[in-house]
Amino acid sequence: VTGGLSMPDPRHREALIQLEASMQTGGQVVLTDAEQRLDTLLFQMKQEEMVRADFPPAMHFFKARDLIRTSPIFSLLQKMPKGGALHVHDFAMVDVEWLVKNVTYRPHCYMCFTDNQSIRFIFSSGWPKALPRCSPWALLENLRAKVINTTDLDNSIMGNMTLFTDQDPETVYPSQDVIWDTFEQVFQAAWGLVTYAPVFRDYYYQGLTQFYMDNIYELDGSTHDTAWTLKTYQEVTRQFTADHPDFFGARIIFTIHRGVNASVMARVVEEAMKLQRDFPDVMAGFDLVGREDRGRPLWYFRDALSLPVERGVTLPFFFHAGETDLEGTEVDQNLLDALLLNTSRIGHGFALLRHPVAKDLSRKRGVALEVCPISNQVLKLVNDMRNHPAAALMAENHPVVISSDDPAMFGASGLSYDFYEAFVGFGGIRSHLGSLKELALNSIRYSSLTAKQKEKALALWQRRWDKFVSENAF
Amino acid sequence: VTGGLSMPDPRHREALIQLEASMQTGGQVVLTDAEQRLDTLLFQMKQEEMVRADFPPAMHFFKARDLIRTSPIFSLLQKMPKGGALHVHDFAMVDVEWLVKNVTYRPHCYMCFTDNQSIRFIFSSGWPKALPRCSPWALLENLRAKVINTTDLDNSIMGNMTLFTDQDPETVYPSQDVIWDTFEQVFQAAWGLVTYAPVFRDYYYQGLTQFYMDNIYELDGSTHDTAWTLKTYQEVTRQFTADHPDFFGARIIFTIHRGVNASVMARVVEEAMKLQRDFPDVMAGFDLVGREDRGRPLWYFRDALSLPVERGVTLPFFFHAGETDLEGTEVDQNLLDALLLNTSRIGHGFALLRHPVAKDLSRKRGVALEVCPISNQVLKLVNDMRNHPAAALMAENHPVVISSDDPAMFGASGLSYDFYEAFVGFGGIRSHLGSLKELALNSIRYSSLTAKQKEKALALWQRRWDKFVSENAF
Ligand SMILES: [Zn+2]
Ligand SMILES: [Zn+2]
Repeated sequence: VTGGLSMPDPRHREALIQLEASMQTGGQVVLTDAEQRLDTLLFQMKQEEMVRADFPPAMHFFKARDLIRTSPIFSLLQKMPKGGALHVHDFAMVDVEWLVKNVTYRPHCYMCFTDNQSIRFIFSSGWPKALPRCSPWALLENLRAKVINTTDLDNSIMGNMTLFTDQDPETVYPSQDVIWDTFEQVFQAAWGLVTYAPVFRDYYYQGLTQFYMDNIYELDGSTHDTAWTLKTYQEVTRQFTADHPDFFGARIIFTIHRGVNASVMARVVEEAMKLQRDFPDVMAGFDLVGREDRGRPLWYFRDALSLPVERGVTLPFFFHAGETDLEGTEVDQNLLDALLLNTSRIGHGFALLRHPVAKDLSRKRGVALEVCPISNQVLKLVNDMRNHPAAALMAENHPVVISSDDPAMFGASGLSYDFYEAFVGFGGIRSHLGSLKELALNSIRYSSLTAKQKEKALALWQRRWDKFVSENAF
Repeated sequence: VTGGLSMPDPRHREALIQLEASMQTGGQVVLTDAEQRLDTLLFQMKQEEMVRADFPPAMHFFKARDLIRTSPIFSLLQKMPKGGALHVHDFAMVDVEWLVKNVTYRPHCYMCFTDNQSIRFIFSSGWPKALPRCSPWALLENLRAKVINTTDLDNSIMGNMTLFTDQDPETVYPSQDVIWDTFEQVFQAAWGLVTYAPVFRDYYYQGLTQFYMDNIYELDGSTHDTAWTLKTYQEVTRQFTADHPDFFGARIIFTIHRGVNASVMARVVEEAMKLQRDFPDVMAGFDLVGREDRGRPLWYFRDALSLPVERGVTLPFFFHAGETDLEGTEVDQNLLDALLLNTSRIGHGFALLRHPVAKDLSRKRGVALEVCPISNQVLKLVNDMRNHPAAALMAENHPVVISSDDPAMFGASGLSYDFYEAFVGFGGIRSHLGSLKELALNSIRYSSLTAKQKEKALALWQRRWDKFVSENAF
């Protein structure tokens, strides 16, 4: 590279630095004059952010949240049109405050305590039959009438419906096992509230509203449920789109827990193919959920998961894969197997850096990773965001989108917190407005929209983007 | 990749898995029958290690050390001939127990307390003049005569000479700034003991002994000092090699703190070239030390560092670079600049994954990274070793060697602890005896030995390796 007979040529050096900068996500985006002005502003903000004693991306999100919330970068990210949220689970998309303050105040809402310190809810016209390993049900209306301070009660319920805590997260959640167990308990607590039909419509509408308020115009959410649910999603989405004409739409990824056995999976895949046929506009495809480390690997389900392609039936896959650090185990092959099963995107892909063959396939075939920084940190795959594998992947513009997985669980909301972690934490001082633009574009490019829908979404997004830039560039 | 008309072909899948396995460090090493037997044993041990509730590579080394020490993998790694240690600082190579129990018991040893809770030593025939911002000197002999419990005193001195602590390391060292400050204090404490001429010979001989006992047969150490020191290193190394004919030798990398200015650097480089000419057998080359984030970047010193090549004089560089997570800053260009200045190896290279151009250059030019896992963890660049960038680099056989930086500082010794972290933490279940063999071979391949010396070293190492395998394979 150098002649070897003199000092390194500064022009050559500069060329290499520029080459490297151009290789990152958004590195080849050409900025308009207004964008350049906004970028200069962003650069100053980021420099100030990086010299703070408490650098938020190096901290646990539970401790960093208040710092992020007051960051000028975060305010800007909130206003920024971020495109779509492509990896969000339906039961964790609405903040718990709304659940408690709104839903649990509705009539006929019962609550009980499980013997492992969680809570359950049920809506019932008569007194419900007690659950095994739970206290008797209490009608919340009665309970609230009895306690002196309903705020305390509500706060305590909220504390049971999220992983977020004011205490030291390392002490409360010392291991992956502990936090995953709590995670699953919290999901079951939400279940009783959200699955009640009259609540469900409002809940989902509220979810779309919260994402829309965070300047997100498209959603690929995942759900566990069947025809009735999809029908409701369809109706609510239509209603929401009618109320908000600049919302591109929402589609649902039908999911099943990876704990099931092969024959259940075969039946569910059959059902998924049927639903995909019946609800092509609202159903995006199929996925498996639950902790990868404890569930069955994709390869175990290969027969069931091959049914669609064998029958020539369309059922796009959006597999979670590589949300693990058990390097070299069977589960760790999920990344390769997701690709071999022609997945459309990869959920998380945290382990991808350790799999050069899978990484290569994902890049060559344009299979984007749905990177959920806060989720990975809270679920203890990584501490300091600067060590998140996506930092390396974005340095070479590997196809990625930023998503939030279960924002309500983590005390986050929408996508802005995760965008903050990606922009400030993964990108360092080097990522710029072009990187943010590329991430937003990626979320449309790799969404489940049809080519025609993407075109329309892109035009809508571009108008919003230009408005955002002109309103914030000085 | 797949036909797309049926389930993935299991043979094709298997081929891709094998391809990926073969790409890792040591993935192409062909094992003998005896090696295969030992590998089977190792695989079982690793499987047991990975299901432990407390997985040592996921823990801070200070908490993991006792677990590692009792691990059967660790015992094996201690016995394994590891080749050379290529990144070790001379003042932190001997465990502090030896310093305190041996050196501070010698006559004329004085100690004082600094007003920032550190200690200093001096050997002096008369009573030494007090240092600024320090307590008056106390003769240790007198102090020990006065105290009731000399063991307590010795333990307290030892505590001041290492970063290792039994308390929670996150509490004691909450930030990089705090631990680097302590780090520098501890170095200064050792300084007064080690630089005393009569001690220095013994100290260095003891250091070679401790590495030799850990089955390391070659050393590239770094030192801050000049002609007298190099002369002493030469003599002691000759003595040690005479006493231990199977020791390949030790060479010294002459270093300067990166806090100096350009004109001091020019003078020091001149001196280094002279020393390199005068002590070609004992001096390996030149490097800059001190915390990169606080020091001047390599590019600031480009004129001085270009002197050797401009004059056609040999002065190999072994630059520390990329020991930072300040992505995108000036300091973060050290990796590229080290390569442009034709460095022979890269110290740490922790940030390399975020620099695809530098990564490519390092790979193509065979410039190995000296990976020091425990150092990076203790100095707070990474928590869980599975997220160390070297895990990804070793997945694609990037040129690396494993070293220990300042083992005495970290409560480690030799290389075995760092090999453990690399083998169990970076490699997961996938790395095997071939990986270990390759790492040992890398340490000879990328050492500062001449081609002829390498050939001899390789033959010596191979004999020891075969003996190790035959003694441990059942
Ligand atoms: Zn998910
Ligand atoms: Zn070092």
